[in-house]
Amino acid sequence: MSAAPRRKPGRPPGVSGTRDAILAAARAEFAANGYDRATIRGIARSAGVDPALVHHYFGTKTDVFAAAVQYPVRPTDVVELLTTTGPEELGMTLASLFVRIGDDPEGQASVLAIVRSAVAQDEAAAMFREFISRAVLSVIAPRLPFPEREARARLELAVSHMVGLTLMRHVMRIEPVASMPADELVARVGPVLQHYFDPDPDSRAAPTPVGTRGE
Amino acid sequence: MSAAPRRKPGRPPGVSGTRDAILAAARAEFAANGYDRATIRGIARSAGVDPALVHHYFGTKTDVFAAAVQYPVRPTDVVELLTTTGPEELGMTLASLFVRIGDDPEGQASVLAIVRSAVAQDEAAAMFREFISRAVLSVIAPRLPFPEREARARLELAVSHMVGLTLMRHVMRIEPVASMPADELVARVGPVLQHYFDPDPDSRAAPTPVGTRGE
Repeated sequence: MSAAPRRKPGRPPGVSGTRDAILAAARAEFAANGYDRATIRGIARSAGVDPALVHHYFGTKTDVFAAAVQYPVRPTDVVELLTTTGPEELGMTLASLFVRIGDDPEGQASVLAIVRSAVAQDEAAAMFREFISRAVLSVIAPRLPFPEREARARLELAVSHMVGLTLMRHVMRIEPVASMPADELVARVGPVLQHYFDPDPDSRAAPTPVGTRGE
Repeated sequence: MSAAPRRKPGRPPGVSGTRDAILAAARAEFAANGYDRATIRGIARSAGVDPALVHHYFGTKTDVFAAAVQYPVRPTDVVELLTTTGPEELGMTLASLFVRIGDDPEGQASVLAIVRSAVAQDEAAAMFREFISRAVLSVIAPRLPFPEREARARLELAVSHMVGLTLMRHVMRIEPVASMPADELVARVGPVLQHYFDPDPDSRAAPTPVGTRGE
């Protein structure tokens, strides 16, 4: 397998051809079987490569999925970022992560593609549901100082705000948020998001976990 | 509240026929001219009715627009609800308004139709931008105890959360938010939203307006 792909005009270089074949196979496999039932093995088989090569190029199944839908960041990196962030910094970290993704032209295109396909087709929505649920919430929630359902609820509510923010800023493009400097936006949103992660929230609602620290 | 139309099988009743003609004309007018430049007069003309009849059936231009896109509530009612709500109750009021709209099957269908058309076409996004900006933010913002831009920013951020919540709950249908009881959801979200309307927010960011009180 060659290292840096040297472009030969008129013919796709080997590495990039193999990567593209894997991504095409991944898209087909996820579309046919959904996120949960798709396997690296199945993707490798239909791309005609060894499963180890899929891992080598993309990482975990989650990362293959993200690459296949052109998600702008590797989920593995996001999970690492969030699980190494103290609960008291999660609001700012999530806000700046999503604002950065949305403000990046590629990131923005991919977030829009995701929302567009999710609102257009039930299968796409189901795929993202499984993906977010298994690959994001289930990985991060156990690191938070709350019982599992409580942690998932708080994370999901925070993420929902960031998804809506991306829509208002980049799709609807409603002022003043549409052209608000990223720093100002993060500084406004982060501290509000943080309330979802307060161990003893001042909210009247989000119940403090009592004796329910479940597995 | 207008009288309920009596259905005559096999033939559309007059009132409903006229209403439908007005709505069809309104959709065409808004699509052709955008929200700002569309007029009640133009809609009436192309529906072949008197402008007063358009007002009679639907109310203001804003309300005609909302009816044309099958928005589930009359903006006039929403504006009245929000402008008669004290700033200290805005978080709970907005949360329960949006959860109620999203949980209603018709409301949900219409929110999805709006997001779907906005992500699919630039013109639709522009139309909703004008609508939300003129008909919602511009009307409510002046009633809040902040300078205009500050009030708009806070309102828009709060609304962005509610739009994202509707997507996660009803499109992506991600648990536990997807099947969380409405009361619990409102009780969790309302107090967090409220931080956007605190006169002296504990956020490090949202600057307290100093010496900038409107023109």
